[in-house]
Amino acid sequence: MAAANQIFIAIIGAGGVGKCFLSQLQTLATRRPSPKLTLCYISTSKRAVFSDDYSEISIDTALDSLAASSKTPPELSQVIEYLASAPAKTVLVDNTSSQEVADKYPLALSRGVSIVTPNKKAFSGPYQLWKDIFIAATASGAKVYHESSVGAGLPVISTLKDLVDTGDKVTRIEGVFSGTMSFLFNSFAPTEGQGGKWSDEVKKAKALGYTEPDPRDDLNGLDVARKLTILARLAGLPVESPTAFPVQSLIPRELETCISGDEFLEKLPAFDTQMEETKAAAEKAGKVIRFVGSIDVVSNAVKVGLQEFDRSHPIAALKGSDNIISFYTERYGSNPLIIQGAGAGGDVTAMGVTADLIKVVSQFP
Amino acid sequence: MAAANQIFIAIIGAGGVGKCFLSQLQTLATRRPSPKLTLCYISTSKRAVFSDDYSEISIDTALDSLAASSKTPPELSQVIEYLASAPAKTVLVDNTSSQEVADKYPLALSRGVSIVTPNKKAFSGPYQLWKDIFIAATASGAKVYHESSVGAGLPVISTLKDLVDTGDKVTRIEGVFSGTMSFLFNSFAPTEGQGGKWSDEVKKAKALGYTEPDPRDDLNGLDVARKLTILARLAGLPVESPTAFPVQSLIPRELETCISGDEFLEKLPAFDTQMEETKAAAEKAGKVIRFVGSIDVVSNAVKVGLQEFDRSHPIAALKGSDNIISFYTERYGSNPLIIQGAGAGGDVTAMGVTADLIKVVSQFP
Repeated sequence: MAAANQIFIAIIGAGGVGKCFLSQLQTLATRRPSPKLTLCYISTSKRAVFSDDYSEISIDTALDSLAASSKTPPELSQVIEYLASAPAKTVLVDNTSSQEVADKYPLALSRGVSIVTPNKKAFSGPYQLWKDIFIAATASGAKVYHESSVGAGLPVISTLKDLVDTGDKVTRIEGVFSGTMSFLFNSFAPTEGQGGKWSDEVKKAKALGYTEPDPRDDLNGLDVARKLTILARLAGLPVESPTAFPVQSLIPRELETCISGDEFLEKLPAFDTQMEETKAAAEKAGKVIRFVGSIDVVSNAVKVGLQEFDRSHPIAALKGSDNIISFYTERYGSNPLIIQGAGAGGDVTAMGVTADLIKVVSQFP
Repeated sequence: MAAANQIFIAIIGAGGVGKCFLSQLQTLATRRPSPKLTLCYISTSKRAVFSDDYSEISIDTALDSLAASSKTPPELSQVIEYLASAPAKTVLVDNTSSQEVADKYPLALSRGVSIVTPNKKAFSGPYQLWKDIFIAATASGAKVYHESSVGAGLPVISTLKDLVDTGDKVTRIEGVFSGTMSFLFNSFAPTEGQGGKWSDEVKKAKALGYTEPDPRDDLNGLDVARKLTILARLAGLPVESPTAFPVQSLIPRELETCISGDEFLEKLPAFDTQMEETKAAAEKAGKVIRFVGSIDVVSNAVKVGLQEFDRSHPIAALKGSDNIISFYTERYGSNPLIIQGAGAGGDVTAMGVTADLIKVVSQFP
């Protein structure tokens, strides 16, 4: 049975971000006893924990309960029905990167289930899905927040929304949107010193856990393209999909047909010369190369790829796997509003999700 | 009479920020007809417009109505009573920098009147006032938002709150918190070239409108100390007041007794050598001087003053009158979360106020 001041939380996904989120949720629930956040559902792709009477699942031991559960997760539409029938407001926390889950957002929202998520797929997929999501939310009053879909916990989405909502005109957005690409180019083409071979840097990044299990999923530029699609749409451009604008892939054409990431990594050294030449050409002009994305709102031009920067440019001077995002607007004039910091990692990504959850909950009567 | 979905707005102050806010409020009210934002009160220190039946004041022509009004503003406690008795939720927008208005926040909040404001005084005055404000808000459920009290519209307060609320440990905050000081030192001690005489730069800044009418109000460091007081308190330090920690004043001791800003500016050139020597000492070490503030949360140390930075340091490389604020936290590790951009100006300050208003309104049932 639901208390007067209770909110039900359902979580899908218990990977890197999901585990960090659980830990933050536990802290939050302890610190803010009201409204009471009651975990009533948690699942991975294989297992689920829930009960028909919405009994509280201890956040402390949720992962253990999940490991011990013999239940398989129900169909998503059944999960949504379960949440929509709960005796209080519900928030679905999608900590996956699953397109299948994203596709169900319009259904969840239309049934009054709010959503917070770092999942990029929902907001960077077909434009029709984007429209369906926000139409459903407006109609039901359910909330949908996705700060961590761009730049992890950095306040990127909220800042862009504030700019737009208060009537500023965003003219241009540019920056480094991938922690992986940031790390790779800060090491391969540092502002001081030489940097290693391209293929060695890719291998190092993979070994350090900075890339996806298959590094091609970073090098193809699609991750950055997805983030730009989200920001462009928030800035008012009806971008059709993340493949609707020029995206430079760093996978050599000859290696596009590799059947595995391992095969790709093995053959990559043969193509180091290509990247070395691009780097040398920039160096000749006193510059360094970086993998950036830009949205020119005025001319409706979105693009992703390599670009040369002066060594003193903030984009060149990034460290580690930091992101940097510059918003050029009418009000801010020639000096952009800049946000910089770690744009990947379980804890900072989960932070964006938790902060979103706090915002959603604060809007419940 | 109030419609079901109506919110009353009262505005105190119609100076630089107040005028920009009115223009943004007009755009907002047009774009988002629901809930209906009804302006029912506006005043300056000399005039006021309002009626006993809470009739709507046209936002379009509010400044003209104010200029034509023969009403003087009632006592603040009467204004609060008037708002508390309105037939719908009310938000008081304080666009002044008045301590007198700030002192009434606890009363307004305790009577259920929410507050949005760029006014630093309420949050950087005596610690008791800070406590009274948040105790009153918690008790009544009224909201109080003050993004623009630090860094104008830059997402500084909201980011710090998100970090703290989600359980991160903020260890250190540092940066350039004054647009005036930023402009002065970027011109006086640029990373490239020579820069002018200190007294000339101060005069230029005043001529360009970058300083307060009396430049000593910037040079005494108190504005920066107030901002640090606010951030330190949000980070959990019970700072007693903006004079409770070391603040370096750039007003030469001999000029502290000047009776006017004009007399001060006239006598300042005689003290250029002092600043020139400080600058030269930094240059000898290959560095530049900047006026910065820092909060060491761990050791509970807050300070404001001149500091030397490498020319390549982001604080040294600032442009124009930009602010930069770095948050060092447990989650973000050695690379801080950085926010940078214009930290002063009517439009960007008003943007923070308008964005706060949107957030407050979204939390009304």
